[in-house]
Amino acid sequence: MDAATLWQRYQDWLYTHDGLGFYLDISRMRFDDRQVAEMKPKFDQAFAEMAKLEAGAISNPDEGRMVGHYWLRNAHIAPNPQLKAEINETLEAIHRFAQDIHSGAIKPPNAPKFTDILSIGIGGSALGPEFVAQALASSSPQLNIHFIDNTDPAGIDRTLGQLKDKLNTTLVIIISKSGGTPETRNGMIEAKAAYEAANLTPGPHFVAITGHGSKLEKQAESENWLATFPMHDWVGGRTSELSAVGLVPAALQGIDIDRMLAGAKEMDEATRIPSLKQNPAALLALAWYFAGNGKGEKDMVILPYKDSLLLFSRYLQQLVMESLGKEKDLDGNTVYQGIAVYGNKGSTDQHAYVQQLREGVPNFFVTFIEVLKDRERPSPEVEPGVTCGDYLSGLLQGTRQALYDNNRDSITLTIPEVTPRTVGALIALYERAVGFYATLVNINAYHQPGVEAGKKAAASILQLQNQVMKALAESNQPLSLPELAAAAHAPEEIESVYKIVRHLAANNRGVVLQGDTSQLQQLKVSKVNKH
Amino acid sequence: MDAATLWQRYQDWLYTHDGLGFYLDISRMRFDDRQVAEMKPKFDQAFAEMAKLEAGAISNPDEGRMVGHYWLRNAHIAPNPQLKAEINETLEAIHRFAQDIHSGAIKPPNAPKFTDILSIGIGGSALGPEFVAQALASSSPQLNIHFIDNTDPAGIDRTLGQLKDKLNTTLVIIISKSGGTPETRNGMIEAKAAYEAANLTPGPHFVAITGHGSKLEKQAESENWLATFPMHDWVGGRTSELSAVGLVPAALQGIDIDRMLAGAKEMDEATRIPSLKQNPAALLALAWYFAGNGKGEKDMVILPYKDSLLLFSRYLQQLVMESLGKEKDLDGNTVYQGIAVYGNKGSTDQHAYVQQLREGVPNFFVTFIEVLKDRERPSPEVEPGVTCGDYLSGLLQGTRQALYDNNRDSITLTIPEVTPRTVGALIALYERAVGFYATLVNINAYHQPGVEAGKKAAASILQLQNQVMKALAESNQPLSLPELAAAAHAPEEIESVYKIVRHLAANNRGVVLQGDTSQLQQLKVSKVNKH
Repeated sequence: MDAATLWQRYQDWLYTHDGLGFYLDISRMRFDDRQVAEMKPKFDQAFAEMAKLEAGAISNPDEGRMVGHYWLRNAHIAPNPQLKAEINETLEAIHRFAQDIHSGAIKPPNAPKFTDILSIGIGGSALGPEFVAQALASSSPQLNIHFIDNTDPAGIDRTLGQLKDKLNTTLVIIISKSGGTPETRNGMIEAKAAYEAANLTPGPHFVAITGHGSKLEKQAESENWLATFPMHDWVGGRTSELSAVGLVPAALQGIDIDRMLAGAKEMDEATRIPSLKQNPAALLALAWYFAGNGKGEKDMVILPYKDSLLLFSRYLQQLVMESLGKEKDLDGNTVYQGIAVYGNKGSTDQHAYVQQLREGVPNFFVTFIEVLKDRERPSPEVEPGVTCGDYLSGLLQGTRQALYDNNRDSITLTIPEVTPRTVGALIALYERAVGFYATLVNINAYHQPGVEAGKKAAASILQLQNQVMKALAESNQPLSLPELAAAAHAPEEIESVYKIVRHLAANNRGVVLQGDTSQLQQLKVSKVNKH
Repeated sequence: MDAATLWQRYQDWLYTHDGLGFYLDISRMRFDDRQVAEMKPKFDQAFAEMAKLEAGAISNPDEGRMVGHYWLRNAHIAPNPQLKAEINETLEAIHRFAQDIHSGAIKPPNAPKFTDILSIGIGGSALGPEFVAQALASSSPQLNIHFIDNTDPAGIDRTLGQLKDKLNTTLVIIISKSGGTPETRNGMIEAKAAYEAANLTPGPHFVAITGHGSKLEKQAESENWLATFPMHDWVGGRTSELSAVGLVPAALQGIDIDRMLAGAKEMDEATRIPSLKQNPAALLALAWYFAGNGKGEKDMVILPYKDSLLLFSRYLQQLVMESLGKEKDLDGNTVYQGIAVYGNKGSTDQHAYVQQLREGVPNFFVTFIEVLKDRERPSPEVEPGVTCGDYLSGLLQGTRQALYDNNRDSITLTIPEVTPRTVGALIALYERAVGFYATLVNINAYHQPGVEAGKKAAASILQLQNQVMKALAESNQPLSLPELAAAAHAPEEIESVYKIVRHLAANNRGVVLQGDTSQLQQLKVSKVNKH
């Protein structure tokens, strides 16, 4: 394509949102007008489905649920007065709570003010708050936030170690819809144990964000926790950043949550327009569709050229992959859908793997995210007339061009700066794009049936561990692995039994393994005294 | 495959390294014995090539260089006495320097001791140090490390902001082989400006790690920097963690670098054995080969179940993708090789995208990294007989099984704990696996020709920016974009000109854009007074 034609294509496809200062450019995705015309009926359907969803249809059919994250930033469009009231009341409660924490009206038992937050959650209850904290918290926020987002004992110890001398002034937020997520429950137990070890009563430090009627809600009540905020059953984990899940920690850090909600609302309005070229979320969905042939044949590489957006790619990894990675379509056909997402930040990643992007296996398309504003203060020159930020900008343009020249496609999203408003808009843009794409490929974007299999398998490993411990306790002699598996009533699960005892032995849990480690059939397992 | 057959396959393929306590399991990759037999000649060649490389052959033919990262941990095998001496002297100098910094024998001009490190580098000069700091630094290290790994002005401001009151006791390490990497050079200029603004002389705070005879070495000399350590031209950036690049920051933080080197040496010895089943790096390369059909058809998802290994996947992303992502093979054929790598950590990522891994597009294989030791202290029970760490372990086993049951393959690497020795061994294992795989697919793993294209394109954007500024300065009236492009002698680059002025305008750089932002042809660009 010659320069003039490409410049025309750029102008033809450039989407601008004046209010938000957003630009979306899909001109470097190699689709043609005929293909776009063919997609029109699918987009009409996607716009219609989205309108139904916003009106309160059961858009998550397997789970019989409404999908209401768009109502969170505009309670006015919620389908009934009760939902409206719930949304508004929650928002008011969050504002009040943050204000009271900041003023010291709500304070820890032995200190004048809270200084830190320990947020315990995983997946949808962690990625949004982590992304937003890194993107938006000031360098001296009203409260400093720390995260436990796993069930790794050493990781928990590291985070608790950072807070060792500050538990006293730390507010602990437990985020779990059901209260039954094991990682989060484990983190809560460990955090409570740390408080008790420091002779502090946990209750006056703890806050729950959970579903109505959950086990966690009951626990918070019975232990006199400071506060409880709701997780509505019509908000999925991966779209919960603008619910209490994301708003409570953000407000506590001093981030302007009203601006986040306003940015999302403005983007929701823009992505409600039922016309492809005037709808940035539809343009994104279109680009994804052509990139991967509607089958996820290309990975989505996300490169924000701004350090504070580093975690946006991890946030999108969840939003996109958990929403779109589905075995069955809505008609029950086996389709193995999805789009793999990865990326960290530019220009840093250019030095890590642009070599492969430019020259290697062409199994991806890139999304460049450009931020126009460099920094708060004027920049020194690093060369005559040139700043650090000019380099960042030049490296983005140069990489985009070098990739295009070698037939690697890209999308470029430009935002004016990283603020609560633009971050809210970014979240809203991708939520909607995922929803549209799901309709294009005829899947349910709002459930996650595949997550259960791993959980069940993990639970059965833990049950097997108990059986193994029992069998060992009852045996008076060392057992071979096959003998132990048989004694644990799991003769076919020798490998799992082996891994369980190997892990227990490594942690002085009353089990010892003897013999040549490479001759598994000859290993002997016996019990010993713990520690 | 029935349980007994699978248990037999597990035992048949399980690799164990008693000294290091490593286990590698590739039994869940679905290859058969016939395929393995067919690969034998290729592996014989890979072993032979590796022996030549270690003996000092020019294994990076394009660049006419030896590839010597294996010598770093065993100077004894370096191909000549001069190299041996260089390696040993560098290591001694690092030890001496770290000791002197820790003792205060080398101290900042106005304080008794250095307290912090600011490491400025990108790509191979950042990912290793970042990974190792997160994996191995104690929670109260001898010096706290901070990184500038990009040319993002706001990111630089954030890091410098953290050090605002500590520049006085901060040691700044500039890492760049040529000294010409723009991001690193920019970071250095900004850091020096911060020192000067604080009325501190930079020299006595600055250290260079750079190639012999580089511009940076000369600058360090002329400005009386504290010290300079060498980057050898036979060590590539992505394999430089066990050179001064990684060892200087590690030693300064108090990490036992001798143990890191010892672990790498031990693994090097294990991966030198010219026999597939006794060589864990060869087994990895085999698994990668079968996973992607020798063409990178499947992405490599890296899931370490340990928070402190979070950055290992980013480290591997560079090592694997920059080494293997090549357009041409060694015979000049166009092959578009590579393997895409992504992942963060388990079990956290299970809540982000295991939905897609289990049910969605089957375009990947997983590497689970298991760490046997849970933590330093005994664990509380989260349920009768069950700890946090049992959950982590159970979730890994359960996910592996759920994926396998749905025809998704995986490798499992088990290490005893995260220590300097095991981290050294992990690095060495993957360095060697990448080298073997490159031979299997007949490419040069040690160059990165594709990186140049983006750099050149970026440089031409910056040059165009200067032309645009000049054209604006010389014009007495507002110009349309086509007029400005013509005046800047780049009539075909209207789009680039537009992006340049849009970025300048957003940063009060003396340029203003007027008109409807969605009508690019009608925009007018004019100059204004800056700031």
